Amino acid sequence: MTGLPPITEAAVRARLDAQARPPGSLGRIEDVAVQLALIQQRMNPRADAIRLLIFAADHGLTEDGVSRYPAEVTQAMVATFLAGKGTANAFARAVGAEVTIIDAGVNPDLAPHPVLIDAKVGRGTRNAARDPAMTLSEAEQALQRGRELAIAVIERGTDVLALGEMGIGNSSSAALLMHRLAPASLSDSVGQGAGHDADGLAHKLSVLTRASERSDAVEPLEVLRQFGGFEIAMMAGAIHGAADRSTPVVIDGFICTAAALVAIRLRPETGAVCLFAHRSAEAGHDRMLKILGAEPLLDLGLRLGEGTGALLAAPLLRAAAALLSDVARLDDVMAGRL
Amino acid sequence: MTGLPPITEAAVRARLDAQARPPGSLGRIEDVAVQLALIQQRMNPRADAIRLLIFAADHGLTEDGVSRYPAEVTQAMVATFLAGKGTANAFARAVGAEVTIIDAGVNPDLAPHPVLIDAKVGRGTRNAARDPAMTLSEAEQALQRGRELAIAVIERGTDVLALGEMGIGNSSSAALLMHRLAPASLSDSVGQGAGHDADGLAHKLSVLTRASERSDAVEPLEVLRQFGGFEIAMMAGAIHGAADRSTPVVIDGFICTAAALVAIRLRPETGAVCLFAHRSAEAGHDRMLKILGAEPLLDLGLRLGEGTGALLAAPLLRAAAALLSDVARLDDVMAGRL
Repeated sequence: MTGLPPITEAAVRARLDAQARPPGSLGRIEDVAVQLALIQQRMNPRADAIRLLIFAADHGLTEDGVSRYPAEVTQAMVATFLAGKGTANAFARAVGAEVTIIDAGVNPDLAPHPVLIDAKVGRGTRNAARDPAMTLSEAEQALQRGRELAIAVIERGTDVLALGEMGIGNSSSAALLMHRLAPASLSDSVGQGAGHDADGLAHKLSVLTRASERSDAVEPLEVLRQFGGFEIAMMAGAIHGAADRSTPVVIDGFICTAAALVAIRLRPETGAVCLFAHRSAEAGHDRMLKILGAEPLLDLGLRLGEGTGALLAAPLLRAAAALLSDVARLDDVMAGRL
Repeated sequence: MTGLPPITEAAVRARLDAQARPPGSLGRIEDVAVQLALIQQRMNPRADAIRLLIFAADHGLTEDGVSRYPAEVTQAMVATFLAGKGTANAFARAVGAEVTIIDAGVNPDLAPHPVLIDAKVGRGTRNAARDPAMTLSEAEQALQRGRELAIAVIERGTDVLALGEMGIGNSSSAALLMHRLAPASLSDSVGQGAGHDADGLAHKLSVLTRASERSDAVEPLEVLRQFGGFEIAMMAGAIHGAADRSTPVVIDGFICTAAALVAIRLRPETGAVCLFAHRSAEAGHDRMLKILGAEPLLDLGLRLGEGTGALLAAPLLRAAAALLSDVARLDDVMAGRL
């Protein structure tokens, strides 16, 4: 558009290599710096203003006991985030990020609140063990609203988006999406979620096996409709919106990665804006990351969600961005030009 | 002193387990929260004010070509830090930490500067391939000054110390310390440092073999005297000072871990205040961490030093501390008490 040549990886690497330290000595942080520069098409990428979007929704699969927590916990945790008392809120304050909560499809109506966005697509999904989780129209609407929301947030001045979720039952939805879209066997895709014992895990697998047997969908939008959640669909849409605005997106754990899988299977080029925050303790996450060719930044045994892992990775992005803006060249250092 | 019972791991774990998330779902971050609470003896530990101390010194071993960089780079990099243009400065700004530079024993005199502390023990160490690197008095003085400096910084209001170093040749000194104090074979202790090729690495190993053959010291203070560096000795002293003021210390990479090894072999109880920031790409680091029983927080292929890895880990400490201060209890959430 401007006639300027695009910023290339070679140009960014050359700039990093000329700085006052041994070339390559910052390992993965240099890779992050390159990715940020290429996404934003800036030699001095920005990662100051980081906003976590927590998408919340309920899941019909909870009727069949796939989670050790009752569905009501979704709305209770939304209230906790709105009160600023969730783990994600604490981490956001610790790393200097803003938090917005999105009602993507929580069962009850939620009272208006300054940091809550009402984007409710439905009152929870249908029970995917018996019926498609959503209609095609609902799936498309969730994707579209996620995309528009991300774009609106970016246009108000967000440098980096971070994604998180809250939805009792959503590790089951994510497992079904992974099974069909990675693809991977269902047993490799199902994990303990919020904390099942062996019996709970076996029951979860049996319910998800029934769900899987109900539909042989493999086309991404149809898989999303059959097995997805409203929050997962909106996160996938948000990734598309970020890609459309050249904005990096920090992907949290297992469920958020399943949303990235949906986004990437729908629009493969949007994977370029994703930075994968961490390898979670959820059983299928490592495999899903490998199938996506993603190398996560952190490996801390997290399995919470809420965007907590994405927030912990956010300072690494800030450091990577600072590298390209603020560090002297070795030539200048040795010539005393400081 | 106060008659209050000490804060125990069980009490901290119980508080974490009662919070509004699945117990254990924050993995390593919960371990960090416990460690911070136990060190500071506070149920709401503090990690807001983080100060990086970069200890700089020269090494006589550089006479024998153990580094691919000339010794003059030490002072040039000190000037870079003082100008705020080093990688460590950029990272410190990115994560909100303060930086102080300490002349522990750089060859030339350095002009006074507001963020430079003159604690020069000598004009570089002697060449450890031929002579003891320092006198016993110098070793003791460096330890003592490091301890006093850390205490002074803590008493002016630092919650968490981070340690870093700059000293051309200091990965050679660190390798010799590891060899004797871990202990480990010399070849397992020597790595590429600031970036040797195979020939450079072989030469480095041959010089360090000569150094090692010169003295059979195994007692920690004598090993420090024979093979140490002024910056390494001061970092070991700083760890002792932090332990004496119940303050967490973030340990950076290979050279800083060698300083922790010295500190711990001299005073084993001081290991309790150390948090190991990252597993570096330097060959011996993983082994040294394992011998210390340390599980690092990050694994990003860093091999720079300067405290850069410690700075990248600092936000994880802040998040861990925030956890204990700012998160609702599940009981309260489910009862609507927010």
